[in-house]
Amino acid sequence: MNVSIAFAGSRIDRADHVRADPERLSGLINPRARLLRMNGLSPVVSTEGSLEWGTLAEAADDADLVFLGLDGECACFAQVPTSLGGDPGPASREMRSAMAMLGESDLATFGGARSLCDWHARHRFCARCGSETKIGKGGWQRTCVSESCGAQHFPRVDPVTIMLVEHEGRVLLGRQPRFPKGFYSALAGFVEPGESLEEAVMRETLEEAGVRVRDVEYVASQPWPFPSSLMIGCFAHADDPGIVVDETELEDARWFERADVVEALEAEERGGPGRAFTAPPAYAIAHLLMKSWVGRG
Amino acid sequence: MNVSIAFAGSRIDRADHVRADPERLSGLINPRARLLRMNGLSPVVSTEGSLEWGTLAEAADDADLVFLGLDGECACFAQVPTSLGGDPGPASREMRSAMAMLGESDLATFGGARSLCDWHARHRFCARCGSETKIGKGGWQRTCVSESCGAQHFPRVDPVTIMLVEHEGRVLLGRQPRFPKGFYSALAGFVEPGESLEEAVMRETLEEAGVRVRDVEYVASQPWPFPSSLMIGCFAHADDPGIVVDETELEDARWFERADVVEALEAEERGGPGRAFTAPPAYAIAHLLMKSWVGRG
Ligand SMILES: [Zn+2]
Ligand SMILES: [Zn+2]
Repeated sequence: MNVSIAFAGSRIDRADHVRADPERLSGLINPRARLLRMNGLSPVVSTEGSLEWGTLAEAADDADLVFLGLDGECACFAQVPTSLGGDPGPASREMRSAMAMLGESDLATFGGARSLCDWHARHRFCARCGSETKIGKGGWQRTCVSESCGAQHFPRVDPVTIMLVEHEGRVLLGRQPRFPKGFYSALAGFVEPGESLEEAVMRETLEEAGVRVRDVEYVASQPWPFPSSLMIGCFAHADDPGIVVDETELEDARWFERADVVEALEAEERGGPGRAFTAPPAYAIAHLLMKSWVGRG
Repeated sequence: MNVSIAFAGSRIDRADHVRADPERLSGLINPRARLLRMNGLSPVVSTEGSLEWGTLAEAADDADLVFLGLDGECACFAQVPTSLGGDPGPASREMRSAMAMLGESDLATFGGARSLCDWHARHRFCARCGSETKIGKGGWQRTCVSESCGAQHFPRVDPVTIMLVEHEGRVLLGRQPRFPKGFYSALAGFVEPGESLEEAVMRETLEEAGVRVRDVEYVASQPWPFPSSLMIGCFAHADDPGIVVDETELEDARWFERADVVEALEAEERGGPGRAFTAPPAYAIAHLLMKSWVGRG
């Protein structure tokens, strides 16, 4: 699909070869290099609606620096926050308002930086032996400091399937208890060890809604930095519309008519609630899936 | 694609709802429950070519048990090895020979069990605070024992893109220094935080072979338990065939004619080397990608 996907499309070149080249990397850590301004794990947005950048002179002396890549000749870094309370969370209100203001490239640059910084802040110790770890390869690795262990740890990306299931021209949507009133979205769930993408789609739909699906079809993907998912959007087909909601996961799941989905997407784009339900915002891949499904009709 | 994918297609029902139900779970931990026999992280294969199962009576008293799911009424478990030396590795010779003997469902059951057991064995400590962790939710979680932290950790699945790039009827393949003589395969690389699947395909092909691609198209996926990847197979198109090999990653990359790919796949199925190159074995998604590409021609 040739559509814009929120959190994808950064113009910064990741320049992976630099990460493994300590000499090149330390040459780039100089006062001309740029430092992404962050407020914890939220972006600092200028009045013009762009990311704010300072210079490495602003970084703490002992800061863990993540090399985001090259913007032309200019090296770009982010600084790992020294303390993060609690568990990783969904997008905050501050984050959602920034998401509405930032352009495509800035949003993607920020999303990648956020995922990496979050991962570093929560991986200061070695899962294998409990020793401390130190940052390496420009922030694309952490290494255990214990000589007898020395395990290498890499930033994590969690694949998530998100699926729009069709039965006779209607589409299956669900709502979690934490969703705003009237809000419905595509079902979704983490891919587990030992299953293909297609199996994950079938398992999740059966678990959450009691619906068996076939003909899983890949549509599009999206990096989602809360904290570091790869959303993999799919269509699938159900022969039997019977629903059994798993109430530990969902508050409700039901079939919606195409006309209701069209209306809900239009309402969402005007910033209001839909008639039959309220649709996910444009930056969510569920919105894109719905739009793409409607366009096929 | 309706083809069999190695390591997918287990007949065991993961029965996810059981994991979060301590009462139900402890009821299933009884002497009738089955325990997957493993030799470290390799399967124990019967003379009939199936997985060998014992009963929970064979498990150590203090063993970490992973609930694999239900086979009919029968609960299936695996036991986490108490010590694993070194880093996770690629498939051993023992593992590859088992892969050739096991049927589809058994191979998938084993792959999922292997990924989970490997993860537990290497995550005995909390990455956030360095305290010990204990197993939870039937092996689908570890929880930090420190009261002030209590972080929850979940098994990891690492998405990897693997891509067959076409230019004017020829296909781009590469070889890593560790590959057997003459062996070429599809390029591949981990998806990084902050990029879509499509961006990962474009970045990896450019990095490893200096080739720019467009029109990335999803083909199929495969769980790959070394240690816990999700291989995401794609096609892509190159306009310019110029290759610049990244010698830190690859020993060689080149374009192969369709006829050479057809011959190499046939040779591989007979168990011999190919004329122009040796193709990946049938259990690898690269083999399936090549076969699918040839079938389109
Ligand atoms: Zn360690
Ligand atoms: Zn902890």
